[in-house]
Amino acid sequence: MQRRNGYGSLGYGFLAALLLCLAGPAWAGPVVEPVEQRRDAAATEPVEQRRDAAATVVHEFKLDNGLKLLVQEDHRAPVVVSQIWYKVGSSYEHSGLTGISHALEHMMFQGTPSVGPGEFARIISANGGNQNAFTGRDYTAYFEQLEKSRLEIGFRLEADRMGRLLLTDEAIAKELRVVAEERRLRTDDSPESLVYEQFTATAYTTSPYRHPIIGWMSDIQSLQAGDLKRWYEQWYAPNNATLVVVGDVDPQQVLELAKTYFGPLPSRALPELRYTPEIPQPGERRLTVKTPAELPYILLGYKVPVLKTAQQSWEPYALEVLSGILNGGESARLNRRLVRGGQLAASVGVDYDLESRLEALFTLAANPAPGHTVAELEQSLRAEIKRLQDELVSPEELARVVAQVVAADVYQRDSLFYQAMRLGIFETVGLGWQALNDYVPRVQAVTPEQIREVARNYLTDDRLTVAVLEPLPLAGNRPPPAGHGVGNMIH
Amino acid sequence: MQRRNGYGSLGYGFLAALLLCLAGPAWAGPVVEPVEQRRDAAATEPVEQRRDAAATVVHEFKLDNGLKLLVQEDHRAPVVVSQIWYKVGSSYEHSGLTGISHALEHMMFQGTPSVGPGEFARIISANGGNQNAFTGRDYTAYFEQLEKSRLEIGFRLEADRMGRLLLTDEAIAKELRVVAEERRLRTDDSPESLVYEQFTATAYTTSPYRHPIIGWMSDIQSLQAGDLKRWYEQWYAPNNATLVVVGDVDPQQVLELAKTYFGPLPSRALPELRYTPEIPQPGERRLTVKTPAELPYILLGYKVPVLKTAQQSWEPYALEVLSGILNGGESARLNRRLVRGGQLAASVGVDYDLESRLEALFTLAANPAPGHTVAELEQSLRAEIKRLQDELVSPEELARVVAQVVAADVYQRDSLFYQAMRLGIFETVGLGWQALNDYVPRVQAVTPEQIREVARNYLTDDRLTVAVLEPLPLAGNRPPPAGHGVGNMIH
Repeated sequence: MQRRNGYGSLGYGFLAALLLCLAGPAWAGPVVEPVEQRRDAAATEPVEQRRDAAATVVHEFKLDNGLKLLVQEDHRAPVVVSQIWYKVGSSYEHSGLTGISHALEHMMFQGTPSVGPGEFARIISANGGNQNAFTGRDYTAYFEQLEKSRLEIGFRLEADRMGRLLLTDEAIAKELRVVAEERRLRTDDSPESLVYEQFTATAYTTSPYRHPIIGWMSDIQSLQAGDLKRWYEQWYAPNNATLVVVGDVDPQQVLELAKTYFGPLPSRALPELRYTPEIPQPGERRLTVKTPAELPYILLGYKVPVLKTAQQSWEPYALEVLSGILNGGESARLNRRLVRGGQLAASVGVDYDLESRLEALFTLAANPAPGHTVAELEQSLRAEIKRLQDELVSPEELARVVAQVVAADVYQRDSLFYQAMRLGIFETVGLGWQALNDYVPRVQAVTPEQIREVARNYLTDDRLTVAVLEPLPLAGNRPPPAGHGVGNMIH
Repeated sequence: MQRRNGYGSLGYGFLAALLLCLAGPAWAGPVVEPVEQRRDAAATEPVEQRRDAAATVVHEFKLDNGLKLLVQEDHRAPVVVSQIWYKVGSSYEHSGLTGISHALEHMMFQGTPSVGPGEFARIISANGGNQNAFTGRDYTAYFEQLEKSRLEIGFRLEADRMGRLLLTDEAIAKELRVVAEERRLRTDDSPESLVYEQFTATAYTTSPYRHPIIGWMSDIQSLQAGDLKRWYEQWYAPNNATLVVVGDVDPQQVLELAKTYFGPLPSRALPELRYTPEIPQPGERRLTVKTPAELPYILLGYKVPVLKTAQQSWEPYALEVLSGILNGGESARLNRRLVRGGQLAASVGVDYDLESRLEALFTLAANPAPGHTVAELEQSLRAEIKRLQDELVSPEELARVVAQVVAADVYQRDSLFYQAMRLGIFETVGLGWQALNDYVPRVQAVTPEQIREVARNYLTDDRLTVAVLEPLPLAGNRPPPAGHGVGNMIH
C-alpha cells in the first residue's frame, strides 16, 4: 500500500500518515485512537512534564549470530508489538532490478515448509493479533501486535520465514502479477502519485532514491525467481536485522525467547552496498506531467541535508522546525495565508524526513483552489520561502511551533507501534536509537537565525525541482485524487 | 576521448565528428584527407553513379566459437583496417557500476602474459600502423590500421587480449585514476559536456542511456578490480564479438587468419542483459545548469524512434532527412535563418542517431550570438519545428537535402575506417550490416508528408527536454567551450 501523506520526520504528520497507511482496506491496522482525539486529550497535560517521563529507555542486546534486539518496556496495557527490521529497501536496488525489495516483502507471506501460504496471517489473527509489513527506501519491516503472552508466536513465525522461506516459481509468478496490479492502482492510476514518481526521478539524478519503492513496471514484470531468491539470501540474515519489541514485557525474558527462536539462524556474509550518491544539482529543474486528473497540483522540492548527511548537526532540526512553521497545524503559515487567508490553495502539504539514510527532499505540495492556477500557487509558495530567508521568525511564533513539534513527538510515544517504529527506523538507517533522545532538546534549541540560515542555504532555486500536474480530461473511471504529500513507504 | 560533434546517424556530421574524435592529441588517427577537401573532390562526380558502385558487398563468416567475421574488399590502396566490436557499452551497465565498460577499454592496453603494458601500441606503431579504441553506449571497439600484409599482427594482438588480459590490482587502481582525470577534463571542466550530461540524465527517466558513457565520478572511483574482471569475463567472449576487416584483402585468407588466432578462444555463456526501457514521458521538462562558461548554450531534445524501435520503418529515415533540412550544410534552415540571416545564433547543431539500440533523442543545440539570449534562440528553434509541422517541405528543398544526405553517405565510404565502423555498428546493435544497403534508397524515398508527420508525432512539447547553460564567471583557467553537439562515444 502506498503511503501517501509522508510522515515527514517525527514531527507533524507522522502519526496521521501512518494511520492512513495502516488503515488501508487490505487488512486491519493496530488499534489506536484517532489522531484528533488523542491530541485533545494530551492538551490537558503540560508537554514538558510528559516529555521527561517519556524519555526513551531501551534495552539493547546482540545475539551471537549478529541479530540486534531492542526492547522497550511499556506496561500500560497487556500487549506487545514486535517488529523485525531488515536493512534492505528500494535504495539498495540497482537499475533493472527496482521493486525487488517490495516484491520480496510480498513473498514473505507465501509460506515456509512448516507454515503454508497465507497461514502466517491466519495464525496471528486466530491469536487475536494484527500483523503486516511495509517496505521503504531504507528498510523492509514486518510486525505483529499481540496480547503479551503470545509474543512467542510472532517470534516463531518471523524466525521461520527469516530462515526458510519457500520461493516457488509459481508463487513468485502469481505474486508479481499482484504487485504489478498494485502498481497500476497505486501509481499509474493515481495522478498525484504519478507526479511524485516523475518528480522524484527528475529531482534526483544519481541517488537510488530516484526510483520508486514499488519499482518501474517493466522491472516488476521482468523479475525472475532467481532474482528474488538471491535478494532473500543476500539480505535476510540475522546480522542484517533488528528485532524491536515494545510493550508489557520483561527484557530478559524477551532476550531468552529471541535466543530460542532466532538464535539458531546462522549469520551470513553480507554483500557490499553499491550505489551512486546524488551529484550536486547545478540549477533549477521543472517538469510537466499531463495525465487525467480532477485537480491541478504542484510539487516543489529542495535538496536538503538530513541527520545522516548534515555538515552541521543542528541543520536538520532547523529544517524540521521550519517545516512546522510552514505547515504545522491550523495556524501555520501556509494554511493561514494560502488556504484560509488567500483562498488560493484547496490544500497544502509539507514533507521532510530528517531520518533518511541519504540526502532528501524538502517538499511543498498544493492543489489550487477553484479559480486559481498552479502558477499563482508557485509564486505564493516561493514567496513564503523567500520570507523565511529575509525575515527572522518571531520568538512567539517559534515557541508556538516548537511546542507543537515537541507535542507531536510526545503523542506518538503513546502508541507502542510508533515507539517500535521509531526505534526500528533510527537503528536501521544507522543513526542508532540513542539519537531519538536528542530529538526534543535539539528541536527546542533551534533559533530564528538557524531557521533563516537553512532557508538561505538550502531552500534555493539551484536546489529546486518543480513538478506541475496538468490535468487531462478524466475518462470517467478515474479515482479521485488522493490527499497529497509524498510516499516513502508501501505495503 | 569525448566525441563532441555527434556524428548524428550516417548523414551529416558523421565524418567530421569522427575526425574530431580521432584527431585527438593522445594518438594519431587514421590518415584521411580533411573533410572539406574530400567534399569538393567528390562534387565533380555525380553522386548516383558513385552510390551504385559503392553498394556494400560483405563476406560474412562465423567461427565455431561464435565469433562473427565481416570482410569487405577495397583494393584502392594496400592497406587494411581491422576492428573488433564487443556487444557491451554504457547502456549495459547498471546504477552504481557506470563507466565500467570504458574503464575496461582502458585496461585492455595494460597487457597480457605475452604482451607487456603499452606494448600493444608500440608493436603496431613499429609496424607502421595506427590503433586505438572507443566505447559507446552500445559497443566497445578496438581497431588497427595496417599495411595489408601485417593484418596478422593485429589479429594476434587482439585475440591475445580477448583471451588473456592481465588485470592486476595495481594497474587497475592506476588506470582508474587516469579515467577519473579524463572525466574531470572532458566533462566536469567542459561546460557544454556538463550540460549534455545533466540533460541526458533528465530527459531519460529509466533508459540506461541516461548515464554518461564515462560513468559518474563516484562510480569510477569506487570501481574494484573484481568488478572489472567480472565485466571482462562476462562480455569479452568470441561469441559476443564481431571482427570487421575492410581493405586490400582476400576474404578467404582473412577467414583462415581469423581461425588461426581467434579460433582457439572458447565461447562462453553470456549474461542476460537486464535494463529498464524508457517509460513514456508525460510532459515537457526543463533544467538550468549554472557553471563557469564563456557562452550561454541551449539544448533541446525530443524522444524519437530509431531503426531498432520504430513502429513504421520509414520514420527514422524521415527524421534523418528532417535533420538535414534543419542543419545539413550552409544552406540548411537553421544556418540560413538563425546564424546568417537573423544573426541570432553564433552556432547551431542538430543530432540524431538512427542506428541507436534504444529510443534516442533528436537534439538541437545552439549558442546565442552576442546581444541575444537563449530564450530568443529557443523561440526561434521551436518556431522552426512548428514550421515543419505546419508546412510541407517543397520538392526542391527536399531534393537538395536528400542529395546532400546521400552524398555524405557516399563520401564516408571512401574511408576504410568508416566502412568498417558502419558495419561494426549495424552488426553490434542488432540491425545487421545488410540494413546499410537500405540507407540510400530509404532516404531517397522520404516524402514531404512523412517529414511533416514525424515532426507532428515526435517533435512535440510532451517529448521535449530543454537544458539551458547559464554561465557563471570564469575562474580564469577554464578551457574555451568546445564545439557543440552531443557525445555518444569516448576513447
